[in-house]
Amino acid sequence: MSGASAPPSAAPASFFRSRWVERPAHVSELEPTALPAGFRAAGVAAGLKSGGLDVGVLASDEPATRSAARFTSNALVGAPVAVSAEGALDRLRAVVANSAYANVSDGERGLATAREAQAVAADLLDVPAEQIGLASTGMIGVELPQEPLIEGVATAVANLGDDALGFSEAILTTDRGPKRASLEVTLPAGTVRIAAQAKGAGMISPRFATMLCFVETDAALDAETVDLLTGVCVKRSFDRLSVDGQLSTSDTVYVLASGAAGVRVQPQTDDELRFGEALDALLRQLALEIVADGEGATRVGRVVVSGAGELVEPVARAVADSPLVKTALLGADPNFGRILQAAGQALAGRAPFVVDLEIEGHRVASAGQELELSGEEWRALEQAVAAPEVEIELTVPGSGAETEVFFSDLTHEYVSINADYST
Amino acid sequence: MSGASAPPSAAPASFFRSRWVERPAHVSELEPTALPAGFRAAGVAAGLKSGGLDVGVLASDEPATRSAARFTSNALVGAPVAVSAEGALDRLRAVVANSAYANVSDGERGLATAREAQAVAADLLDVPAEQIGLASTGMIGVELPQEPLIEGVATAVANLGDDALGFSEAILTTDRGPKRASLEVTLPAGTVRIAAQAKGAGMISPRFATMLCFVETDAALDAETVDLLTGVCVKRSFDRLSVDGQLSTSDTVYVLASGAAGVRVQPQTDDELRFGEALDALLRQLALEIVADGEGATRVGRVVVSGAGELVEPVARAVADSPLVKTALLGADPNFGRILQAAGQALAGRAPFVVDLEIEGHRVASAGQELELSGEEWRALEQAVAAPEVEIELTVPGSGAETEVFFSDLTHEYVSINADYST
Repeated sequence: MSGASAPPSAAPASFFRSRWVERPAHVSELEPTALPAGFRAAGVAAGLKSGGLDVGVLASDEPATRSAARFTSNALVGAPVAVSAEGALDRLRAVVANSAYANVSDGERGLATAREAQAVAADLLDVPAEQIGLASTGMIGVELPQEPLIEGVATAVANLGDDALGFSEAILTTDRGPKRASLEVTLPAGTVRIAAQAKGAGMISPRFATMLCFVETDAALDAETVDLLTGVCVKRSFDRLSVDGQLSTSDTVYVLASGAAGVRVQPQTDDELRFGEALDALLRQLALEIVADGEGATRVGRVVVSGAGELVEPVARAVADSPLVKTALLGADPNFGRILQAAGQALAGRAPFVVDLEIEGHRVASAGQELELSGEEWRALEQAVAAPEVEIELTVPGSGAETEVFFSDLTHEYVSINADYST
Repeated sequence: MSGASAPPSAAPASFFRSRWVERPAHVSELEPTALPAGFRAAGVAAGLKSGGLDVGVLASDEPATRSAARFTSNALVGAPVAVSAEGALDRLRAVVANSAYANVSDGERGLATAREAQAVAADLLDVPAEQIGLASTGMIGVELPQEPLIEGVATAVANLGDDALGFSEAILTTDRGPKRASLEVTLPAGTVRIAAQAKGAGMISPRFATMLCFVETDAALDAETVDLLTGVCVKRSFDRLSVDGQLSTSDTVYVLASGAAGVRVQPQTDDELRFGEALDALLRQLALEIVADGEGATRVGRVVVSGAGELVEPVARAVADSPLVKTALLGADPNFGRILQAAGQALAGRAPFVVDLEIEGHRVASAGQELELSGEEWRALEQAVAAPEVEIELTVPGSGAETEVFFSDLTHEYVSINADYST
């Protein structure tokens, strides 16, 4: 990475790496592990993994902290989701997270372990148990060992510190690396911070998926505002991605607002708008990090579909989840036939097939029929689909709706990871 | 395969290899390329592939031949499907098939090529063009070269012979080998033959998928009976399989009955029942051959789901199409957590999750919760899932319905084939 031609003082790479996310002008980047005022965090090695950090605690010191949560819509949910969903989701004070075991399908024993972790953290942090959110990720259908988890929680609470370094690592499973950022946001009312730590690599799909994401801000927001902004931003980020079309049992997003900066974000103000823009950019970039880190992924595709409201979502999902489209993305093959085939599958029974297709701005099919490309156009297209990010635009019958899904390619490493590793 | 301990005159391997298909007692096997009376076939190398046979013609010499056809339900269909669907599907006299190019998304040019192949075959065989069925498989969105195709059709017609050897090879793409059988069927009314040639390896899914299958019988059936039996047997075979969840643009089944054996199969008789049983076993085994030959496949799974009518199909498809279940099948990993997760995805929004799961007869989850298995049971389960065929049974809420889907594992070879090969 270093060499004679490297600039002597290169700026660190921006968190906003994707061409599909722009850093809002009123947002600047801090050290990615910096925590907003009022928060402390820790990650410890509790022995759940064979090595590395595996239990994390994140806590707010502010009693007036307000929060929101979103969970998977899978009919089968992990014990941490089931237990947390019954808590005071608008007033969470802390989050306990672990990797290695998802604590799913373990019956009463799994529920007891989740409740015990919640109770121990509540006791040590001196807050009611219902104000502790839980999140576990890792193998499902296997017992989460209670004793090391509880010891890990106690150690983490005893070691809470001012940054999210350990916490952001303790939540990882097959991720290549941590996904985290910390932003400074200039609002008319004052300056606040928003930070987030996420994980996610496989079992990623429809309706934000095991992805976990923890967001902290020192702005003061009422619970309804946190919930509203969380809902809107999750729909535009974790809800729009697919690694393997598999909806996890454990997807969880927690957003906590400590208010410690002393800056209040009132509903329906410019402050709310600007804060929302920053949160939106943060979650969209983290969602793209998850897709780019899709187990074994080498390239990210974005499919944009416009047309009738009832058609755009199934067509976008069909293209994003097609293993033939995903392997073509791996092979840097501008294989529009497979894209049209997947769209046609979602449109089964709706003849005629009048679909337009553009890949990286090159119109390759009109009304379902191939267009002749010149040799030069074809070479430009082949070059474009070899880039790290590839954009596909489909126009289907009807009008009035547009949607997008971000997806990864399907690679040998995905097969290796999932044939050899038990989730 | 040979050795001192091998039996001196081992019987040739039965076509009915799968444990999920039984050879009916009134059915015996002939040479797999033998054609029933009244049929001739040929396969030639027309230069569409870089090597090997690529154009095939199958013809009945009997003017009273009756037939039926089934096509893909993809909204995007190939020109051969579009042109054939307008023909006299109940009176087909011949089929023209080619591999290498699917002739999809090529607009008027593709339609013209399909019509020209139909017209040339009709002229040479002296039958109306509407009585020629077409089928193409291979790359989509690429021109099917008309000249070699037409020359191939002419050469094939000139070389029609008494067996299906060449024809069964000319229809293959990424298949490991031909899929074909010829059966002798003893009916109360007399003895008839049924033969079939199929292809299919990738882009295989919902509603029989590119799979092609050509069935010939010398029994005499009226057109309604051929259509009825074709519909029922396709629903129980090619309709129940998934390699990659991808519905092709070109799936086609043709069934032709020449009547040359002089044995009439009347509706609602024992003859029809027995004939139907033979056709059913033939198509189910061919469907299983297609799954077992799923691009790169090493193992076949069968998922059986019983419960409420509106739940069994989406749950069976979700399990069969899950890349996580498919990679676990590759890894011979009795990973019931992934099976439950996929079922839960199909049941999103329908809590509580009360699903029972058996793998190879071992009950591993009850009402969505893991059961404790003894070490011995676990070892037996691990051994069972390393077999070439693995059975999964799910019981979901409700009752009255049951369905099955056969599926392949997801392997490195699938990724290699589809990242390097353009379909």
